[in-house]
Amino acid sequence: MELVKGGVTLAQGFSAAAAAANIKYEGRNDMALIYSEVPAVVAGVFTTNKVKAAPVKWDQYIVKTREHARAVVLNSGIANACTGREGDSVNEAMAKAVGDALGIEKEEVLTASTGVIGMQMNVEKLMHGGELLASALSDSPEAGTLAAEAIMTTDTVCKEFAVEFSLQGKKVVIGGMSKGSGMIHPNMATMLCVITTDLNISKELLQEMVKEDVEDSFNMISVDRDTSTNDTMVVLASGLAKNPQITKKDKDYETAKQALALVTRSLARKMAGDGEGATKLLEARVVNAASKKAAKSLAKSVIASPLVKTALYGRDANWGRVFCALGYAGEEFDPERVDFTIESSAGSLCLARQGLDTGFDEEKAEEILSEKEIRYIIDMKQGEAEAVAWGCDLTYDYVKINGDYRS
Amino acid sequence: MELVKGGVTLAQGFSAAAAAANIKYEGRNDMALIYSEVPAVVAGVFTTNKVKAAPVKWDQYIVKTREHARAVVLNSGIANACTGREGDSVNEAMAKAVGDALGIEKEEVLTASTGVIGMQMNVEKLMHGGELLASALSDSPEAGTLAAEAIMTTDTVCKEFAVEFSLQGKKVVIGGMSKGSGMIHPNMATMLCVITTDLNISKELLQEMVKEDVEDSFNMISVDRDTSTNDTMVVLASGLAKNPQITKKDKDYETAKQALALVTRSLARKMAGDGEGATKLLEARVVNAASKKAAKSLAKSVIASPLVKTALYGRDANWGRVFCALGYAGEEFDPERVDFTIESSAGSLCLARQGLDTGFDEEKAEEILSEKEIRYIIDMKQGEAEAVAWGCDLTYDYVKINGDYRS
Repeated sequence: MELVKGGVTLAQGFSAAAAAANIKYEGRNDMALIYSEVPAVVAGVFTTNKVKAAPVKWDQYIVKTREHARAVVLNSGIANACTGREGDSVNEAMAKAVGDALGIEKEEVLTASTGVIGMQMNVEKLMHGGELLASALSDSPEAGTLAAEAIMTTDTVCKEFAVEFSLQGKKVVIGGMSKGSGMIHPNMATMLCVITTDLNISKELLQEMVKEDVEDSFNMISVDRDTSTNDTMVVLASGLAKNPQITKKDKDYETAKQALALVTRSLARKMAGDGEGATKLLEARVVNAASKKAAKSLAKSVIASPLVKTALYGRDANWGRVFCALGYAGEEFDPERVDFTIESSAGSLCLARQGLDTGFDEEKAEEILSEKEIRYIIDMKQGEAEAVAWGCDLTYDYVKINGDYRS
Repeated sequence: MELVKGGVTLAQGFSAAAAAANIKYEGRNDMALIYSEVPAVVAGVFTTNKVKAAPVKWDQYIVKTREHARAVVLNSGIANACTGREGDSVNEAMAKAVGDALGIEKEEVLTASTGVIGMQMNVEKLMHGGELLASALSDSPEAGTLAAEAIMTTDTVCKEFAVEFSLQGKKVVIGGMSKGSGMIHPNMATMLCVITTDLNISKELLQEMVKEDVEDSFNMISVDRDTSTNDTMVVLASGLAKNPQITKKDKDYETAKQALALVTRSLARKMAGDGEGATKLLEARVVNAASKKAAKSLAKSVIASPLVKTALYGRDANWGRVFCALGYAGEEFDPERVDFTIESSAGSLCLARQGLDTGFDEEKAEEILSEKEIRYIIDMKQGEAEAVAWGCDLTYDYVKINGDYRS
């Protein structure tokens, strides 16, 4: 199973579009639409933040009450969070504008917003944007990329991945796009993610698969420990691959889940590496932990530590900060058993063995840490569980971007 | 009850000293000693990090098993954490060197270290430093200040406060010093804090008072959410004020506790304002919360959010980020009831009422946020509980300091 070129338009039955609605940004696309030509089974997971944006509340209602959906409309620039009843009706107007233009119910249209919190959106601009989108739909790969680009905020690279695989002789595609760069922390990242697939699967099993998947993908990344008000991951499954419908956790379910993981982990990894101001991707791999839960919490604690992140930026092999972050993860372990190794394309080096400095070569360590993608391998020597988390370095540019994001 | 000028040497029976032992820093004092001329009742609270420095383990043992102590020796430069058995014996040698020079048992000497993790200390330097300290003891205010300066690492200002009050006709003094600037997060700050007092109090009640106190002082500050391996707060009570011994939670206990709080909150506030790279002190005051626990968790969530901190640095009245941080604190509340006001010596301005933007004057907001000390007042309108937490802005200099701290 391998990644292929493509995004949300690769699966059968899906088209996409982008439009410039001048919601807040000027001179660029800031709205995107994904459309399924048949009713698609819908599933989703959303932010755990108590302050939920209007589109999050809308989508949660739809995912909870309906079997199918047909479209997702997204905007960047304004988050439509902390906007009260006016925000709710603006959001509904956006769904309705798109629904009207496509000839479907507004309840078949999911919504997602990202940008500044606390600001109201202009309904006329949204409605005009909705019409532009509906008339520009295309199933070309380019249309998928344009949609992925339209939802970028402080993102510097567009994020889309797809995978093709076979189920009982039928070719199935899962493709996805996401955005997310700041306000990124497990549960979930500030991120919007739309996955489209032609997989034939029941609503119940699709929702189950998405819930399981997010635990090992988007919930394992952090840029700044800030859990956003808008996190949204929605999946539309058109069924057009015509594989025998998945209705239980059988071998086909596992294969599809593996394919989904390939797409979502690739998106998650790319989001972490594109963290605001980041110059490096950090992958923390905790091995031989006492339990899966412990492995995850230890790995996340390391990638989220500001002191680990600044040391990484400074290419400083300051392994004590990694141990400090392990120590406050809330898990039981003996620091005097732990080994710590750094790795990159420039090589591999053990910095601490049994909790003590190995007297490593500082120059070699700096050489390894000078690469763009760094792996920290933390061997707990307690059990057999492992987990991977992704983060990035903390740089001057994170401060710059966020000291002046609103204006 | 008011703060008075002074630190650890102000209470009867205490003297202090500083010395240059060249442990890691050169050309500055890097060791400090506090000495009580009589056996002093001892209490302490320590880091919750699973990775505990050698001096933390030593002090925990002493506080647990002994009624009294006589001295505290501290060093900056190296943390003596992640140093295994060798670290333990180096730490014990430091206690013994000081004990020998003072003619007391090593078990009467508490220790504390701060600095780089994972590096071993040179025993000879420590022993020489111990001798220098013992011969330089003085009960002058200057000696207290020199001790407070000797334990600074990335701190930019020396932290000491004292208070005088009366108990049943006897004058009592509580004085303290602390250090802490990075790796600062509730439970507790990366901080070393020594409090001396001539209060006459039982061991049991002193320990109780310290435990209660730290919940509203040092556990309410955060610079970077990193809970250190070395956090230590120890209190020595000589009893020389000759007030009737406090043995239960009576009026005298409450008075003394209030006095202690005045010192520790002043130290905590000063540590937050001197966070690494900080240009501003942020005080978050949550009022009318459902419970004290909720108020504390909401206040801490706000001061610890990187996005709140960078917005503060940018003088950006981006109140949505404050609501976002409230939302992921894990407490139940209705965002559409919450009011949010900013305050400083330049005035006061309500930015959000009932969860919605007030259409405030942006210029006025920027003027308020341009001051050095900023207060955020968050009215939950749920109950009567309140809490205060202290933090600081996140700046380029935090990244600079921590991208290259070790070398």
